[in-house]
Amino acid sequence: MAVINGSSRENGNTDALTQKALDGIRYTSFYLKNYKINPIDDQRHVAGGFDKVEDDYDELISQVLQHDVLIFATPVYWYGMSGVMKNFVDRFSQSLRDEALNFKKSMSDKKAYVITVGGDHPRIKALPLIQQFQYIFDFLGTEFAGYLIGEANAPTEIFSDALSLENALTFNKALLKHTEK
Amino acid sequence: MAVINGSSRENGNTDALTQKALDGIRYTSFYLKNYKINPIDDQRHVAGGFDKVEDDYDELISQVLQHDVLIFATPVYWYGMSGVMKNFVDRFSQSLRDEALNFKKSMSDKKAYVITVGGDHPRIKALPLIQQFQYIFDFLGTEFAGYLIGEANAPTEIFSDALSLENALTFNKALLKHTEK
Amino acid sequence: MAVINGSSRENGNTDALTQKALDGIRYTSFYLKNYKINPIDDQRHVAGGFDKVEDDYDELISQVLQHDVLIFATPVYWYGMSGVMKNFVDRFSQSLRDEALNFKKSMSDKKAYVITVGGDHPRIKALPLIQQFQYIFDFLGTEFAGYLIGEANAPTEIFSDALSLENALTFNKALLKHTEK
Amino acid sequence: MAVINGSSRENGNTDALTQKALDGIRYTSFYLKNYKINPIDDQRHVAGGFDKVEDDYDELISQVLQHDVLIFATPVYWYGMSGVMKNFVDRFSQSLRDEALNFKKSMSDKKAYVITVGGDHPRIKALPLIQQFQYIFDFLGTEFAGYLIGEANAPTEIFSDALSLENALTFNKALLKHTEK
Repeated sequence: MAVINGSSRENGNTDALTQKALDGIRYTSFYLKNYKINPIDDQRHVAGGFDKVEDDYDELISQVLQHDVLIFATPVYWYGMSGVMKNFVDRFSQSLRDEALNFKKSMSDKKAYVITVGGDHPRIKALPLIQQFQYIFDFLGTEFAGYLIGEANAPTEIFSDALSLENALTFNKALLKHTEK
Repeated sequence: MAVINGSSRENGNTDALTQKALDGIRYTSFYLKNYKINPIDDQRHVAGGFDKVEDDYDELISQVLQHDVLIFATPVYWYGMSGVMKNFVDRFSQSLRDEALNFKKSMSDKKAYVITVGGDHPRIKALPLIQQFQYIFDFLGTEFAGYLIGEANAPTEIFSDALSLENALTFNKALLKHTEK
Repeated sequence: MAVINGSSRENGNTDALTQKALDGIRYTSFYLKNYKINPIDDQRHVAGGFDKVEDDYDELISQVLQHDVLIFATPVYWYGMSGVMKNFVDRFSQSLRDEALNFKKSMSDKKAYVITVGGDHPRIKALPLIQQFQYIFDFLGTEFAGYLIGEANAPTEIFSDALSLENALTFNKALLKHTEK
Repeated sequence: MAVINGSSRENGNTDALTQKALDGIRYTSFYLKNYKINPIDDQRHVAGGFDKVEDDYDELISQVLQHDVLIFATPVYWYGMSGVMKNFVDRFSQSLRDEALNFKKSMSDKKAYVITVGGDHPRIKALPLIQQFQYIFDFLGTEFAGYLIGEANAPTEIFSDALSLENALTFNKALLKHTEK
């Protein structure tokens, strides 16, 4: 299991809720902010296809693909995933053209979960983000196995939001059950 | 009027549709790809607030804010705005803390439009993106005055999508009418 | 082509916009308010299945199914389709169990459009309704070929909403083109 | 506290989940199927306004309004609330014109929750329904205090869906906490 974390901070609320949600589960964390990931340069329709990009994406995605279960953990920034995570996801278009990677087939064998934490009514206002992830996973054939929405703003606030913590516990149980199968 | 363009390419479909939609209207274009805009480092809750960032964002946003009508033009990448545009929007959080900028007041006096072009059923699958923009504009107090969704994939494909072109024409008329007021 | 109209009034805004949108096209109208359609009694899991219902639904649905293109025309009531139309749609569950009808196969060969008119920012606030129709048509295998959202409140207001009328014209062109195929 | 139940069956999955979610809480149930509620006849713009309707709605809504917390409990039928519940909600338009009722003021002092149970990926496909309820409550000024989505199809299936039951338990805790305030 791998966590792809789109926060700009470590030890923020998204991190904290993710750790609660994954308690007792072994997983690898990828903090996107620690990688150099360029925005996509859309060369899908250019003769010769995508140029090689001098950044960390190729290495990162090949590591990510070694995991069967992916957790996309992102703060809700402006009612969407963070820009850092969006740049990562945008580069999937490049991976789709990378024949050696077998990207779509690989993703279609995986389960994905989303964990997201926001400050402004996220249980309503992060729903377009959940719907966006649904379309992403539908396209890739990835099973969208569940999501967890937390509410918090200032650091450590998540620890005082009882509903978020209860939901994390429930998410944890479901995840343990799914990963046992 | 200013167009904030989140494409990775100039002269792509988003560009083409935007030009159709703005035919006969004077506007300034900001191609985000031509600016260095770092991802947000969320320091809202750090003593001392946001550090000064060495990139083009501050200069760019101050130029953008001089316009009364903003057009957010973005390709639909993975059922959302491009990462380049998302990084730009994420930095609004920094602008909100910049007292000299009077960001929220300034944005609350503006009208905004969204133009977006996608290849995979965008009139359905870009709706979460439209809903996300609604939440963004609601937060800022900006009037969300309209949106235009185009369908195209390969370059210049937009020119053969009659529905997109018709809708651009209608959008153009509405925009002309709005901007006259 | 058949129009399934969920208005409580004839000659209301939904009716008016639908007529604009279908100008020059031959179609059959079914005004749901003129039929007795009981709410579903969910007997999917009852031994013996659904009881025969003494109302007009069976006769109506068999007439509807004779058309290749279906237009669902409904006012936006409380950010959704009208209750009259919802009761009609709910009864599809009964049709699914009616072997003689071959309902799902029949629906999967059709194209569907949605026309809806609302008074409170329908181009944003009717989007969940559009998404709901997408799920309905996805389930049935029906092609969701397009939708038209009009804005109006008091009777005849639709005639003074230039954007609605322009969009109806565009819809009309698209429909003419589709139906020619 | 009042539960407004839109099921066509008593003792179905929606009922069962609602009972779990409200365990230990005193509440009044209104099973809409036991009331005669006509579809709205939209007479908002008719001279003289709405005619008196010979059904149970007026009596029902006056009882409902006596409660501070409203739970809208509905099965997910065709990715929306049941037709029976939609007809009930549609009649709110009539209540808005009933000066004696003071409907909007009364609703703006209440908290509302939604409980819904569906069979086809409701945690994704019932999200438009949640968004619709958000718009309804926004319009009325009612606080949308939370929602619970269960997954079940055949009768009693809800009892074997661990995630639904866990979520009901969490919902119950949150509700107990809210209602104590």
